[in-house]
Amino acid sequence: MMDSDGTLSLVLFSGTDDRLSAGAILAAGAAAMGRPVNVFLQYWAVDAFRKDRVTADHGAAPEAGVAGAKLIRESTQGPRHWSEILRQAKELGDVKVHACALSMELFGITKDDLDPLVDDIEGVASFMGDASAGPITFI
Amino acid sequence: MMDSDGTLSLVLFSGTDDRLSAGAILAAGAAAMGRPVNVFLQYWAVDAFRKDRVTADHGAAPEAGVAGAKLIRESTQGPRHWSEILRQAKELGDVKVHACALSMELFGITKDDLDPLVDDIEGVASFMGDASAGPITFI
Amino acid sequence: MMDSDGTLSLVLFSGTDDRLSAGAILAAGAAAMGRPVNVFLQYWAVDAFRKDRVTADHGAAPEAGVAGAKLIRESTQGPRHWSEILRQAKELGDVKVHACALSMELFGITKDDLDPLVDDIEGVASFMGDASAGPITFI
Repeated sequence: MMDSDGTLSLVLFSGTDDRLSAGAILAAGAAAMGRPVNVFLQYWAVDAFRKDRVTADHGAAPEAGVAGAKLIRESTQGPRHWSEILRQAKELGDVKVHACALSMELFGITKDDLDPLVDDIEGVASFMGDASAGPITFI
Repeated sequence: MMDSDGTLSLVLFSGTDDRLSAGAILAAGAAAMGRPVNVFLQYWAVDAFRKDRVTADHGAAPEAGVAGAKLIRESTQGPRHWSEILRQAKELGDVKVHACALSMELFGITKDDLDPLVDDIEGVASFMGDASAGPITFI
Repeated sequence: MMDSDGTLSLVLFSGTDDRLSAGAILAAGAAAMGRPVNVFLQYWAVDAFRKDRVTADHGAAPEAGVAGAKLIRESTQGPRHWSEILRQAKELGDVKVHACALSMELFGITKDDLDPLVDDIEGVASFMGDASAGPITFI
């Protein structure tokens, strides 16, 4: 039996601005619907949430090409940046952002290196525990 | 409580032929099982559904390499193209294809620019509303 | 109505070591929680599970860059390789690994070409049947 409460368990793996934007938009949409959102940052997404490079250019998917990457860059300025969309989602609803402990170790960084958008560091077991028997969306 | 009716809510983000094929195959498989399928096109997938370039070569994931990309190209000819698989899925079952309003704006295109496979344009809020408290698969 | 038993239906599509690691870690986490895990290998993941190249260098996502790819390579040595994590997950819980029949055909390979981690070959219809009305995570 599915005992989920409708939580959107969202693994952000990719570190490119287009996928991070897609993730932030889904999180904001779910929060607006009143769904709890549980974000788990892994690998390149952890790297993108370093406080000194959140708004740096993280590129786009290879299929974007030069023109597409430029489009993404221009479309993620200021209030439309994925970090801002996620910030608004956190103000709007029940949105938590966790960084994967293993990935933190991989990059040799600590909580202090991350943007305050990140609530805490947790292991995959905790994330899976929060997800309970519910669905997981991987981006 | 999960009040989903088993709908497969499928976000197609990537615009490469291999991922689009994987998405079309999952949609067709779900439709054949009698599951409603709700496809939401974002970013590069919207671009791939432009009516004048649906069957163009959209490449493959970088790990495909030159040989792999050639394999994908050859395996998506004619009736085996992802657009044909999706067309059959729509004839077979309850499959809807929506293009993300934000992504349409990003590319500066309108409904007329898209293949008739696309039913309509909608915002992320509508998509999340349709997904209700159910799962979301992101490709 | 959702009649899932909490099974994590996991499509592994990507063939890079970082995404395969993320998939193996999620599978192991779910198995540790007592969730059944049903892995379906498609496209480049099938290629990565060939018995003569499981532990070869499969690279990383493009955003990794040279330094990131090196980091992934170093972090997936020996017992920390994704194939080992998956092996442990299979010993620990109810984890099945199926290779997609269509992808096998695409590469012109048979079950004998794959690592023993793969239980069998199946079509997308079987995978969707096992997933029932439940969620699907795509990596």
